[in-house]
Parts: sequence; C-alpha cells; structure tokens
Amino acid sequence: MITLATLHRTVRAALEEDAPWGDLTSTSLLPAEARATADLGAREPGVFSGGDVFAAAFTLTDPTVEVDLHVADGDRFEAGDVLASVQGSARSILTAERVALNFTQRMSGIATLTAAYVDAVDGTGVRIADTRKTTPGLREFERHAVVSGGGSNHRRSLSDAVMAKDNHLAVLRQQGQDLGSALRDALSRLPHTTHVVVEVDRVDQITAVLTGGADTVLLDNFSLEDLRAAVDQIAGRATAEASGGVNLDTVRAIAETGVQVISVGALTHSARALDLGLDVRVG
Amino acid sequence: MITLATLHRTVRAALEEDAPWGDLTSTSLLPAEARATADLGAREPGVFSGGDVFAAAFTLTDPTVEVDLHVADGDRFEAGDVLASVQGSARSILTAERVALNFTQRMSGIATLTAAYVDAVDGTGVRIADTRKTTPGLREFERHAVVSGGGSNHRRSLSDAVMAKDNHLAVLRQQGQDLGSALRDALSRLPHTTHVVVEVDRVDQITAVLTGGADTVLLDNFSLEDLRAAVDQIAGRATAEASGGVNLDTVRAIAETGVQVISVGALTHSARALDLGLDVRVG
Amino acid sequence: MITLATLHRTVRAALEEDAPWGDLTSTSLLPAEARATADLGAREPGVFSGGDVFAAAFTLTDPTVEVDLHVADGDRFEAGDVLASVQGSARSILTAERVALNFTQRMSGIATLTAAYVDAVDGTGVRIADTRKTTPGLREFERHAVVSGGGSNHRRSLSDAVMAKDNHLAVLRQQGQDLGSALRDALSRLPHTTHVVVEVDRVDQITAVLTGGADTVLLDNFSLEDLRAAVDQIAGRATAEASGGVNLDTVRAIAETGVQVISVGALTHSARALDLGLDVRVG
Amino acid sequence: MITLATLHRTVRAALEEDAPWGDLTSTSLLPAEARATADLGAREPGVFSGGDVFAAAFTLTDPTVEVDLHVADGDRFEAGDVLASVQGSARSILTAERVALNFTQRMSGIATLTAAYVDAVDGTGVRIADTRKTTPGLREFERHAVVSGGGSNHRRSLSDAVMAKDNHLAVLRQQGQDLGSALRDALSRLPHTTHVVVEVDRVDQITAVLTGGADTVLLDNFSLEDLRAAVDQIAGRATAEASGGVNLDTVRAIAETGVQVISVGALTHSARALDLGLDVRVG
Amino acid sequence: MITLATLHRTVRAALEEDAPWGDLTSTSLLPAEARATADLGAREPGVFSGGDVFAAAFTLTDPTVEVDLHVADGDRFEAGDVLASVQGSARSILTAERVALNFTQRMSGIATLTAAYVDAVDGTGVRIADTRKTTPGLREFERHAVVSGGGSNHRRSLSDAVMAKDNHLAVLRQQGQDLGSALRDALSRLPHTTHVVVEVDRVDQITAVLTGGADTVLLDNFSLEDLRAAVDQIAGRATAEASGGVNLDTVRAIAETGVQVISVGALTHSARALDLGLDVRVG
Amino acid sequence: MITLATLHRTVRAALEEDAPWGDLTSTSLLPAEARATADLGAREPGVFSGGDVFAAAFTLTDPTVEVDLHVADGDRFEAGDVLASVQGSARSILTAERVALNFTQRMSGIATLTAAYVDAVDGTGVRIADTRKTTPGLREFERHAVVSGGGSNHRRSLSDAVMAKDNHLAVLRQQGQDLGSALRDALSRLPHTTHVVVEVDRVDQITAVLTGGADTVLLDNFSLEDLRAAVDQIAGRATAEASGGVNLDTVRAIAETGVQVISVGALTHSARALDLGLDVRVG
Repeated sequence: MITLATLHRTVRAALEEDAPWGDLTSTSLLPAEARATADLGAREPGVFSGGDVFAAAFTLTDPTVEVDLHVADGDRFEAGDVLASVQGSARSILTAERVALNFTQRMSGIATLTAAYVDAVDGTGVRIADTRKTTPGLREFERHAVVSGGGSNHRRSLSDAVMAKDNHLAVLRQQGQDLGSALRDALSRLPHTTHVVVEVDRVDQITAVLTGGADTVLLDNFSLEDLRAAVDQIAGRATAEASGGVNLDTVRAIAETGVQVISVGALTHSARALDLGLDVRVG
Repeated sequence: MITLATLHRTVRAALEEDAPWGDLTSTSLLPAEARATADLGAREPGVFSGGDVFAAAFTLTDPTVEVDLHVADGDRFEAGDVLASVQGSARSILTAERVALNFTQRMSGIATLTAAYVDAVDGTGVRIADTRKTTPGLREFERHAVVSGGGSNHRRSLSDAVMAKDNHLAVLRQQGQDLGSALRDALSRLPHTTHVVVEVDRVDQITAVLTGGADTVLLDNFSLEDLRAAVDQIAGRATAEASGGVNLDTVRAIAETGVQVISVGALTHSARALDLGLDVRVG
Repeated sequence: MITLATLHRTVRAALEEDAPWGDLTSTSLLPAEARATADLGAREPGVFSGGDVFAAAFTLTDPTVEVDLHVADGDRFEAGDVLASVQGSARSILTAERVALNFTQRMSGIATLTAAYVDAVDGTGVRIADTRKTTPGLREFERHAVVSGGGSNHRRSLSDAVMAKDNHLAVLRQQGQDLGSALRDALSRLPHTTHVVVEVDRVDQITAVLTGGADTVLLDNFSLEDLRAAVDQIAGRATAEASGGVNLDTVRAIAETGVQVISVGALTHSARALDLGLDVRVG
Repeated sequence: MITLATLHRTVRAALEEDAPWGDLTSTSLLPAEARATADLGAREPGVFSGGDVFAAAFTLTDPTVEVDLHVADGDRFEAGDVLASVQGSARSILTAERVALNFTQRMSGIATLTAAYVDAVDGTGVRIADTRKTTPGLREFERHAVVSGGGSNHRRSLSDAVMAKDNHLAVLRQQGQDLGSALRDALSRLPHTTHVVVEVDRVDQITAVLTGGADTVLLDNFSLEDLRAAVDQIAGRATAEASGGVNLDTVRAIAETGVQVISVGALTHSARALDLGLDVRVG
Repeated sequence: MITLATLHRTVRAALEEDAPWGDLTSTSLLPAEARATADLGAREPGVFSGGDVFAAAFTLTDPTVEVDLHVADGDRFEAGDVLASVQGSARSILTAERVALNFTQRMSGIATLTAAYVDAVDGTGVRIADTRKTTPGLREFERHAVVSGGGSNHRRSLSDAVMAKDNHLAVLRQQGQDLGSALRDALSRLPHTTHVVVEVDRVDQITAVLTGGADTVLLDNFSLEDLRAAVDQIAGRATAEASGGVNLDTVRAIAETGVQVISVGALTHSARALDLGLDVRVG
Repeated sequence: MITLATLHRTVRAALEEDAPWGDLTSTSLLPAEARATADLGAREPGVFSGGDVFAAAFTLTDPTVEVDLHVADGDRFEAGDVLASVQGSARSILTAERVALNFTQRMSGIATLTAAYVDAVDGTGVRIADTRKTTPGLREFERHAVVSGGGSNHRRSLSDAVMAKDNHLAVLRQQGQDLGSALRDALSRLPHTTHVVVEVDRVDQITAVLTGGADTVLLDNFSLEDLRAAVDQIAGRATAEASGGVNLDTVRAIAETGVQVISVGALTHSARALDLGLDVRVG
C-alpha cells in the first residue's frame, strides 16, 4: 500500500531529481502569471494506475495547481481518451509534467500487462501475483499497479514472510542439513504469524516440505503434467503456487492445472511504459 | 555520473526496502557460519552495466563479502557466461541477491537496448542519446547504463540546460508572445553557460529559433525528407537533433539524414530487464 | 531483527541527541590523550541483551575504542558480574557511556522480565510473545530483547499480518457487516502469504472466525475455563493465542489450558531498566 | 521543549515504524467510508501528559481526523475518565491508535510517577529533577512528561552544561591532575554561560569544588546526616543537589535536609506505562 | 533558483540549529498569549534580497505569524526604511528573529555588493557573474542574492558545465597530454548540451582552446592590454570572460576591454552582512 | 564543538551541493589514473582554522587521497606559507578543491579577524566572544573558528541559555509585566542549570536585573563611562558583558572598563574569506 508518507517522500525525491535547482526553461521563458490547462491523453489503450501519484507530482510542485482525474486506478481506457486534466500556473505544470508522466506511464504499463495476464486466466479463480523483481525504490508503486491491473501482491519483502528457494536449499545441502528439520527449527524461531513458502523443483520433494510446515509450496518450472501431480499431492494442505516459464501464451494452461497462485516476475521487471502524453490546451 | 554518495544512498535504500527488518529466511534457516560462493550467470546475450552497483549490494549488506567482477561495464557477453562471482557468508549473499539482480538486470537491459541502437547507426557518427524519461529515483543509474551501451547522455535535468518544447511554445502563443524575442529575453536572464535546445515541428520555424539563440534544434517527428531539409537549413549553426518515431527499424535512415543526435525515450522507459541469475555453487 | 542499518541509524541518533555539539565536560576537563578502561558491571541479577548496541555506542563515537563483551545476548548474570569492558580514549568512553547504558539497561530489563515469564511456563511448550506496545522508535531493539529473554516475536507491524481486534469488530457491526464475510472478502484482497489473527472475547465467536479463515484465534481476557473450551473448539485448526490479564502469577495456569501462544504487553511497555553501571577502573 | 519539528519528526517515524506499508487490517477489512468515534479512557488514575503527541498521531495519519482533548498536560484524572475523543475515518483512527497510545501511556506513566515524588516533597520547595537516563530518541518527550508531573528538567545533554562525575574524577586522578585546577582550566575554555555541576561523594571534597567554580554541587549517595552537613558547608554559594538512593520512601527525608534539587533517574528509566485504552464508541 | 524544497529544507535546518529544543527565553519569560508586531528596519542603505527566506523563517516556526514584505528582492532602500513587518505570537516572532536576520542580512549584503559592481559597469552591457566561491550549503541563496543585485549566475556546480582551469591544465601537462586533443576527446564523452569554459593565462593559448571546442574563454589575470588583444583574437567565436584582480576600482576598465562577462569571487566570499534589525513596535 | 557526525554530514552536503552528479571536467578531461600533489598556499598572512574540514573534503570524496596538514588550527602563518599538502588521484583532488577552500578560507577568515580583536585586548584578561550571528548551517564551524582565533564562544543557541534582550523587554512592557518578577517566574520553570543573561541599556536597570537572578548582565551600547559605572554597580555579583559599537578601534578602551566579556557579531557575520589557494605541483 502506498502510504501518504511513502507517496510524498518518493514524489518529492523524483521532483528534486528532475529539477534540483528549478526549471530553467519555464522560469526564464514563461511569464510567472501565465496559466494553462493541460490534458493527460492516452495514445494507446490500457489500464490506468497512478492517479494519486500523478496528482502529487503537480500539487507537491505547487499546491495551487488543480488536478482532475477522469479515471480511477484500475479503469480501462482507449487510445484518445483524456484521463486527467490539470489547471494552474503554466510554469508549475510544465515543471511537474515529466515526473508525473514517468510515474504514470510506468504504473499504467504494469497495470496493463497485469490485466492481460488476469484476463488470460479469467474464470479459473487463479491469482496472478507479483514478485520482488521490482524497480529499486518503487516497490509500493509497482505493487499498487499490479493490484490496479487485477493482480495480487506476494510477500512484500524479505522481512514479512519466509521463502526458501533453490539457493537456500543448495546452502543447506552443502551444510549437510536436512530441509525438513531445518524448516522445523526455523519455525520455532520465527513469529507464529510467519507464512512459509518453500520452492521445490520436483514432485517428490513435496511431502518433506509439507511435513516441515510450509504454508505455500512454490512449484518452480514444473511441466503442466507435473503441476497437476503436485496439486494432487498437496491436496489442499498448502497453497499451490506456480512460477517459471510463465507468459501470456502459457499462463492459461498453467492456471488450469489447479494451482491457486501464479507468480510472474515480468509484471514488474519487463513492463514497458504506456504511451501517455500531457498536452497544453490551445485556444 | 553515479557518485559514491548516490551509489551508496540508493543501494542502501533498496536494501532497506527489501529487508526492512532483516531477512527472515536466511537468518532462520541457514547457519550463521555457512559460507557460499555464487555466480552471476547470463541467461541471454547482452551488454553489461552496473558492476559497481552489483558489488555495492553485497558489500553494503556485509563488508566481508568478496565480489569479483569478470566483465566491465560496456562489455558484451553471451548466454551462459559467468559475469561475476561473490563469496562469503551465505546469509549475506542471499539477503543481497535480489537487490543486486534488480539493479543489474535493469541496467544491463538498458545497455543492451542502447547498444542495438548504436550498432544500427554504426559508421554514421550520430549520437544515440537518452531523455528524461527515466525511472524516478534512478536517473544516474540509467544514464550510466546508456553510456555502457555506447550511447550519449542528454541534459541531466530541468536545471542544467534549457529545452523549449511544444508545450512551452503553446503557452507562449497563448500569451501572445513571439518565440524569438522570448528566447532572447530568457538568454539574458540565464547563466552564460546555459545550453539552449528548442523543439520545432516544421522546417519554417528553424530560422526564428536560430536567431533566438538556440544551440540545438530538436526536430521532432520530422519526415526523413524534412530532416534533410532541416539539416541543410541549420547549416552547422546549431546541433541538429532528431526525436520521435525512432525505433530499431527507422533509426538508421534518420541517422543518414545528417542529424548529429538522435534522442530515444525507449532506451530508458521501455527496456526490459535482462535475464541474469545468481546461483550458489554446489560443490 | 536489528539490521546493521537500523543499529547504526538508531545509535547515531541517540548519540546526537545526547551530545548535539559534543561533550562539554570531557573535552574541557580531560586531557585529549588520557586513556581509560571501564567495566560494565551488573548491580543486580538478570538476563543480558544489547551487546551489539552497547559496542556500537562506543565505536560510533570513536572507532578506536575497543569493546570486549564478556557475555552474549541471552546469558544470565549475577549482581557483581562484569559484563563487558571498554578501553580507549577517556573522553570518548565517557561521552558514549550514558547512551550505551540507556540502551543496555532497557534491553536487559526487557530480557530479564521476559525470562521470568518464560521460566514460569517452563515445560509447557507455550510461547511467550511480545506485542506492538513498544517504545516508539525502538521496536527492533525491544523485539530483540524479548528474544534474548527466551520469548517470541509477534507480527512486527500493521503491515505484515492482519489482526482484527475488538475495535475493528465494533466498526464492522456499526456498518452492519458480518465478520465472516468481511474476513473472506479481506482475504481475497490480501497477499496469499498474509497471516490472519482474529480476536474474540467469547467462545461462541470461534466458529465464525475459523470459517472466515483465521490462522490464529486471539482469546482475549478469557477465564481459564473458557480458554480450555476455546482450545477444544479450535481443535488445531488455528493457533490458539491468549492475552489479557497475564502476569507472573497467572501465566502458568493460562499456559496449562492448552493455548500455544501467550502475548504479554508488559514485556515491553512496563519493564524497568536493569541496574547496570560503567565504572572507570582505578588503578 | 518539544518543538513542532521534533514532534512531527518523531511521531512520523513512529507511524512509519508501525505501518511501513500501511495497515493491512483496516484497509482490507473496513470500508473506506466508515467513520468512527473513539474515546481515550483511563483504566487507572494518574497525571496526563502527551496531548499534542496523541493528537499528532491521528492528524499526521489523516489530517481530517478530529481530536478533542478533554484534559491538559499536567491534569490529574481517575480511572474511568474519558481523556480525549477522536472522530473521523475508522481506518485512520485504527491505524494511528497504537502509536497514539504508546506515546501517551509512556508519557503519562512518567508524569504520574513524577507527581508522586513531587507530592512527597510538598511544601519543602525542593525540585524533583530528571536525568539523562531517558529512552534513546525520546528525550524531549520524557522531559516534557516530567514537567507535566510537576518536576523540573536538568541539563538537556552533554552539550549544554558541564557535569563532572565520579568517572571523570577517576580519570583526572589517574592523570595525576588536581580537580580544582582542572576545573579552573576547563572554565577558561568554556563559554561564560556554562553551568558547572560537580559530583562529590564526601563532605570534605566540597571546598575544593566550590573554589574550582562549581555552580551546583551534586551530593551523590550521601547519608541524611552528611547531606545536612554538606548543605551547611555549601552555605548558599552553589546549588545543593542530591542523588542516589532516592525512592518514594526516602525522598521526603532527603528533601528536608535543605538540598534544593533531588534528581531521580527512575522518573524516566523505570516508569511503567499507564493503562489507557482507546475504545470505538458503539452506537 | 531557490526551489520550495530547498527553501524549506534550509530554513528548517537553520531554525533547528538555532533552537534544537526550543527557545528557553521566550517560552519561560513571555506569556503564551502575548502578541507583537515587529519591523525589519534598515540601518544602512542597500539592495534587498531574501524576502521569501525572511518570511519562511517566521511561518515555518509558526504558520500563524503574518509577514508583510514592503520591498521586493532587488529593490534599493535607504537607512531608516522599514522593509517588512511581522505580526503574531510574540514568542514565535522572537524565536525566529535571529534566523530571519542571519539569512536576510547576508543575502542583502551580497545583493548590495553585487549592485555596486553592476553599477560600475553600467552601460557596457557586461555581465557581472558569481563563482563557486559560495558558503557551503547556501549556494542557491547566494546565487539568488547575486541576481537580486543585478548580477548573473555562472555555472551552478561541477556537474552542469565544464571549466578547465590551471590545475587541470597542470595535470594534463604532467600526463604529457595536449590540451586541444584532450578537450576534443572530452567533448565526445560529454552530453552535447555541455557548455565548455577553458581558462587561459596567455593570449597565445587562445587558438588551441577555440579549436578544442571551448564555448567560453576565461581570461584569468590578464592585463587590460592583453584582455583587448584576447577579445580581438576570440572575435566572437566564443564568449570572453575575465576574472582575477577584479575590484570596484578596476572593474570598469576591465569591462571596457570588450569582454562579455566578468566573474567576481568576492560577491559571495567576502560580502559583509548588511545592518538590518528587527524591532518590536512599542505601542 | 564540531562532532564527527556534524563534520561528516556538513562536508558531505557541501560536496553534493557542488557536484550533485559528479565533476564533468575532471572525469571527462583527466585520465582516471593521473595522480597529483597539490599545496594549500597562503596568499596573505592570517590564523589558520579548519584543518579537519579541509582534510574531510578530500577524504570523503576519495578515501585514498592523503592529506598532510603543516599547521594546526590556531597557528599563525605568513603569505607564501604552505599550510597543507594533498596527494592522490588528480580527479579526486580537483573535485574536492573548491569545497575544501570554501570552508577553510571562511574559517581562517573568522579566526584571523578574531585574533585581531584578541590581540587588541591583550593583557586585559577580557574574553572576545562570538554571537548567534552566524551563517545558517555552519554554526559549529564558525564557533570553532572563533576559538582558533583565541576567542570564546557564547551560548550555542536559543536552547542552552536564556538571554533576555530589548525585544523581550518590549513585549513584557506591553504586557504590563515587571522584568524582575517575570525573571524570577522564568527561573522557577527553567532547569537549575540554566545561565541567564539579561540585556540592559541603562545603568539604572542593573539592580532589578541582579535581583531577578541574572548570571550575566549584557551592557548594550553603553558609553565607556557608563560601562565603568555598570561594572562598579555589578560588583562581581554577575558577569559583565559589553556589546554594540565594538570594532578594532574601540575594543581596547571597552576592555579597559573592567567588563569581563565583549561579544562581537562581526567576528562571524562580516569576516571576509582569507585568500588561500590550492596549486597542483608541477614537477
């Protein structure tokens, strides 16, 4: 969730990054008293995300700029739609423009890509979840965008849930430790509220993992057949989550194996910016 | 340029974002004394960027981890190449892994995409330049990645050069102001070291812009024919820069019109993360 | 977990709070070259916590001070024991003394109180857990102290687990909402890794809560008899946690009802500082 | 004094500590539009402190929450009294609740304990003063609470007054330095506005200390008889301050020896949280 | 340009520096409800700068204080003029007074000195420019003050323009490198928007510098005769800037040599504070 | 006192202010491997201050630069003396040069001016003290420079001592309050360690001020005759401090009136930067 504190801190930092000692162009070229109205226009269809961030870019630059959002986060739009309008000092609007767009284009890009995955599994009841493969510094913003697109969030960080992955298991093996007992020991040291995910790459690992206390079994790079077998074996005793090799062509079939969650790194690490633009109204 | 201060501040913030109160998994599951060696492997070919950032993710987590980079920023690599190795506390390595990858995959993605553009204009002497369409908070990192890919940086921010764009011109028109005289007035108020870029969308605007004192004329969304005419008209009195409608299919022809700079927003706003992975060596 | 970043930030802030522009006494009264050795002595028995914090207070003041800890976090000690020694510049040691003690006395106070609760339930297998009733700014330090005393941590914050308490239920009732369906709706919006605790104050509420998807049922202010009934009813389908009216006289009986966790606000909100002192060796 | 800057910075940090990425429970469980009224109730008698902090926890979470304080800092209250009411978004109120209570319970606990000491010396004109034994990060808040309880503040930090204590004297002795001349040298280097406190543990040290220029003589762990002798010897040439072995049973007798100040570490290092609770009104 | 972010951050830091835990005098001596009106009076003639900063010192201390500026930045005033008035809580006004004056006196001192230089070159069209010899932490404020005095800003920092000075040239010589080719290499690595200044100390160096691509030739410590020769040789191909040995006695003659810019370190490094005072109106 | 924390924070901020995204000139023009030695030379005589700050500017830019100080803070030097040398990466040295000089020139300017005042009162035993008229953000640095010049510091801020000045007295008069009783009330609310300065502008105010409990009487803008009368009247019951109309021509006569302290705002608000330069050695 993007708290007010995170929203303000991050947008302020972005504004300072982009105009550390002001906007030379606007202040030297435009009269201080010039006012303008500008529209946020969609140049391609998509799913919107980042309304609050868009608004904050302007109002943290100049509290007298008025921002009017015509869509809510999660709304779909077509090319040519006007998504928002801003009105106020021309200098302020043009100073904030790029930062407002940089956030909104990226977030709407993620929402749009997420929605494509969600649409692809429509009717299966499967969650499309994000991962920690987010842009450094923007995790809350990208998680919010995934939700705007109809997706679900996964654990937020290394601090709020356990996920034992292949590299952890490799270290345990080198240490001559058994995963099952290592897990049980870990659970005794963790808060009783800790959710434990364990990644497996073969069906025959599942029993040990369930015995060890996993709440979610992450089935990584399983074939469809193995996914079905794994779901059978888990038998509702834990959440079945699939990952690896997921794309828009494969996701439906994966969803139909009976897993409850499919996590997709590409949602955040490889979404492209959506083509949105801000245009000063002329006339 | 990524200064040491920016490097440390940004990587520290990313590490805290990803493990605000530590890594539950590593500390509960792995023995404190377990050591590991892990390799950064390329799962597809590309151009590397972010070596210092990769290393900092580990050493700012734990100064005793040793990082050995096998490639330098700007080097090309193939799928299967090992790009770097880290050695030290298993807990520390797995705590820093995701942040190290999140930076390096993104930066190498940008470098790789930039290199494709640079390759496409090979021999023309034209610069492929970035824009301000960067990820909020990561501008220095993304500008560095563009340089790793053989590209050039544009102005850094709104504070270090003037760029009068269509929206500025729209406001001036609404104010009943003439661009030429507005520019001359602006120059008298700006430091004498300020570089001035003015965007035009028609050839017949060029003369006024040169008279006004532009150092660079940005030819936005010009046809190839118009680009050639514009270059003729500018005649070396300013730098000719093209933007708009640039992609890997069109960039060569644009470069051959005689412009000196082609600026490409996609370098930073739409590069996808390169597929790199960190694997604990299993002995 | 106290990360290195949290440790350094918090101790640095404490040192600046206590000597914003230096230590007038030491620098005006003591020769710059005077060296001293000082011992951290226990003036009453207890359980130690805060070794790293104690050390950091000195080394962040002056990296040349050497700190030698004679006990580890979690160790028990007697009145008169020397728990640590520091050696170095007399000015530096006396500048850092109070901050080092303020942290260590508080943390050891919490560890000692926690250990008393843990001892009281010895053999029952019940966890003594902390709450969010911690000192603002010191949550990691106090959670660590609880662990030093043999206790367990609860959820870290409002962000990493759900806990529906009486005030939430009161709002739901005012809204005319049914807890069970509200819970199920909430779960569909939360990450699948979210642990859900629901507080109840009557046995007859338990069924709805389990149906709603609670992972832990928090039995608040239950009589011993009702606790036993509740444990029976939960029947292993969720974790049974007791709270309210817990003190050193009552905790054993509560533990023997079969609950798995007892959470105790007093561990952190009402522990007194342990009597530890730092004495310069004369000699 | 808690400045506005300190108030906002500290409360904001506490809110972020407790909800780094928002309140999962309120936002998933309660409707965004639900409103609530909640009362801060006293579950035991005491002296109130922290009204501004209580209010800030809510208004910094959500500026639209209205806080109505029914008591002022320093007011006494009984069990069952309603001390304040808050009204606004149910989500916001429940998000801020714990932080508001954590501050107010602690501050009121300190005020209540201080008031007990102040009451015990009623009529003697003696000041009950705090020490630097405060919670790291909360010094202003705890000093304010002491004042709410009728106590006095001592020096704020190592930077604003000199206090030469036993450990300083031990170092001087090891250096073969005479306290009197060391003090006079120190005074020549200090601002002329510096107040100098010197701790002594025997009556026969007082003359040297007064000659050295002490403004306050701190009589540490003196018997009542020695305190009386010390007061006689000081004879108004400096402030006489007692410390050590002070508790609610001994403080009156100490006050009656004629000292002007009694400093009590326990006011801040060992006050327990007062039992206050916030309850949503059920309508 | 002083952005709102820089203004608030810097003034807030100054207020905290001057009253880290409040204003003992005002809060202990003056009634909380006392109100006052105070006037900012000029005790010598000068040019005003710092109106926004003056106002912010009061309003960031207490948003209810009203500040009425009677002059704008850049206005000239006489001894005895009232430049601004403030009205509100007496405590707040006296708490903020010194910080408000410290900024305004310094900025007006710089503006006044700058105006003397600008007056001295009146009619020549030459720019009087500042340098990087500013007070650490106050660069934007001092650059603003220079503009208030009618002067021009130079490059802002090491990051926004190139200036090759004697020390750079000395290093190049030691490396056996030719300035011309080093410059050309540098230009190929720099953004095409980078302005390049090269310092020379002899006329015969100018040709190489122009060939290397300098936009401005900085003529350091040239005689008047050499300045004229240099201007002839540059012949409009670059901006001619003079520095060194500039004072109010010499600046006119330097300006008349035909250079376009004269940069003067003394504007910021040696301006004295102007004598301004704040006086509470006695009614 | 400049603590390590203040030193590092302030110098780091200055370095970032001067090179927010690096030093374009050094990194584009100089080879990464070029090394240089540079000398800090005095171009006029003076008193040195700022050795630690000078060194920190280089080592915080690049920890491998070696700084060798040839003088200590407080040492006098002549024009032509070499005060320090630095050796290391040419890029790093030239990046840090300006910041190092900006601090050192300013601090040595203050030390030199202070020393002139201290010399002027030589033999009188009178302290030359600074005021709060310092540069925002640099108070510790300027106070340290005053000490380097042989001067004394006054109170550090509004928080560590009381100073009732003319504006406070004006407010009290408007409130119909008597200074003496207001002072006594204030003292009862202040820590017993608070030093109280009261400004008077007539001899007949002194008695009331002493009765009210002033520790220092500040005699503002008194004639020499009145100063002598005031000193007689104070008669050792408080410190006598003079201010107003103090300059190098008048300070000796003021000192000879018998006051103990003379405070001089000009030490910090109007000292000019000393002429120091850094020159790369040409071998």
